[in-house]
Amino acid sequence: MKQYCFGIDVGGTTVKCGFLNTEGELLDKWEIPTRTEDNGSKILPDIAQTIKAKIEERGLTKDEIEGIGIDIPGPVNEKGEVNLAVNLHWGYVDIVGEMEKMTGIRTKAVNDANAAALGECWKGGGAGHKNLIMVTLGTGVGGGVVVEGKVIAGAHGAGGEIGHVHVTEELTEPCNCGNVGCLEQVTSATGVVRLAKMHLEQTPDMPSVLRGRNFSCKDVWNAVKDGDALADEVAEKFGFYLGRALAAFACVTDPEICVIGGGVSKAGPIILDYVQKYYRQYAFSACKDATFALATLGNDAGIYGAAKLVL
Amino acid sequence: MKQYCFGIDVGGTTVKCGFLNTEGELLDKWEIPTRTEDNGSKILPDIAQTIKAKIEERGLTKDEIEGIGIDIPGPVNEKGEVNLAVNLHWGYVDIVGEMEKMTGIRTKAVNDANAAALGECWKGGGAGHKNLIMVTLGTGVGGGVVVEGKVIAGAHGAGGEIGHVHVTEELTEPCNCGNVGCLEQVTSATGVVRLAKMHLEQTPDMPSVLRGRNFSCKDVWNAVKDGDALADEVAEKFGFYLGRALAAFACVTDPEICVIGGGVSKAGPIILDYVQKYYRQYAFSACKDATFALATLGNDAGIYGAAKLVL
Repeated sequence: MKQYCFGIDVGGTTVKCGFLNTEGELLDKWEIPTRTEDNGSKILPDIAQTIKAKIEERGLTKDEIEGIGIDIPGPVNEKGEVNLAVNLHWGYVDIVGEMEKMTGIRTKAVNDANAAALGECWKGGGAGHKNLIMVTLGTGVGGGVVVEGKVIAGAHGAGGEIGHVHVTEELTEPCNCGNVGCLEQVTSATGVVRLAKMHLEQTPDMPSVLRGRNFSCKDVWNAVKDGDALADEVAEKFGFYLGRALAAFACVTDPEICVIGGGVSKAGPIILDYVQKYYRQYAFSACKDATFALATLGNDAGIYGAAKLVL
Repeated sequence: MKQYCFGIDVGGTTVKCGFLNTEGELLDKWEIPTRTEDNGSKILPDIAQTIKAKIEERGLTKDEIEGIGIDIPGPVNEKGEVNLAVNLHWGYVDIVGEMEKMTGIRTKAVNDANAAALGECWKGGGAGHKNLIMVTLGTGVGGGVVVEGKVIAGAHGAGGEIGHVHVTEELTEPCNCGNVGCLEQVTSATGVVRLAKMHLEQTPDMPSVLRGRNFSCKDVWNAVKDGDALADEVAEKFGFYLGRALAAFACVTDPEICVIGGGVSKAGPIILDYVQKYYRQYAFSACKDATFALATLGNDAGIYGAAKLVL
């Protein structure tokens, strides 16, 4: 009976490592640097090395390890192969093949946003559910869609790339992805600031604590909480774009719950109210009662989700 | 070694029955009436009866049957239960439980649009692919989404209800679902006619063969093929709504192929051109190369898809 597993969350600067039992208790957590030099060729050997060291430190053998789950910032196909991961300086990398060769332990790999969705579905804001849409509102907007307990990877590893759904004709500047009018452009941290700036311009006579100064996404939500009428209208727009997009995705997967995480979600439950209002307006009748929750695992979501892959 | 299976496609007036081998060859096909009297309580016994008769007719025993797949017009949850199927006069029905009890043969059940998607993915326009979005443009707009060879049923059996994604603020009359501005309202057969009528009103000085007479969806596409400039603009709008919606869904499931079926698709490959143009414009970069195809199984798609459920 194998009792342990590893969840490894690879970021552009650090690798977050988790040692868990197969019930999903995080027994140990540590970080190693992500060495991106030499086309990132040291990243996987470093991970194999730290896993082997942890197994030895714990007085275990590899036969007691159920598997290694790894998530990385970039698309991963269902075989665990990467064709390009800019932040890791990777071209083609066969994560599963290389890790299994180096460790002798069964390995699976997934995109980081998809791992976070799986983690929140297993142990976080979506715990107890099998069908979930997770959206991570940070510098960008990532996502992951879980159906029957499995995350949708997609034909090109682009499953759950919900930040790049087209939501508006109001913008002219392109998104990082090359398209114009993506969800990311209006609901990421910079997106919320963009919405607020646009609204300030469009309503020159409306007073607001945001007017005439530099402000952050956090400032916008604080203004909403303080009852600033203009900020409230910005929050409505934010809710409209995200709620309507989630309603569209619900036509595909009919989720039990939508979980919202990332830096923007630190504004708290108030954001759920704005999003759920528009979700309910636009969702297909059978899907309107999906619940909404904030993510709870923070930076550990990837570790949990990666580990879940091998269980 | 079990060599045979049944695919049963239950409609509001007839039940289409298929007897297949496990490789997916349709060996026999017949119909029985759908008896909706007495709250549809005779429908499943009639199906059990015709299946038992076919087994006897073929000189087989139930041990040679891999299973029975059934699709019905209405939401079916993952356990094979129905809570409401208006066209069959059903309230709660446990399809799997009742059929297994009556036949002694393993049974699975699914929504009809999802069965059609699975059928087209297995033996039709999407054959050879595992990730597909199918849209059926008929009186209504149905859909089914296949991921890794499995169709997404969803928490309430509403997975793949893509006809009810919100796509436009231009309409005021409600959709059958109660919302306003659904994809179904602009891309179903009546939806295409609606789009054409709206465009005729909006461009009173533009000549068109469609002006000043009653016309059908087929007439609109014939006008497109004959080079009618106004009809071409209608086709562009149709392509915009459907292509952009499919691009949104692609952010969730990242399909290899989109398959279009139903009465509207009888206009032929020309509709794919209009849809794919807008799909490519709005899809996330990694998903832009998804291919487009017409459905090929026609009324047999449900039989194939239902059968595939048990294989």
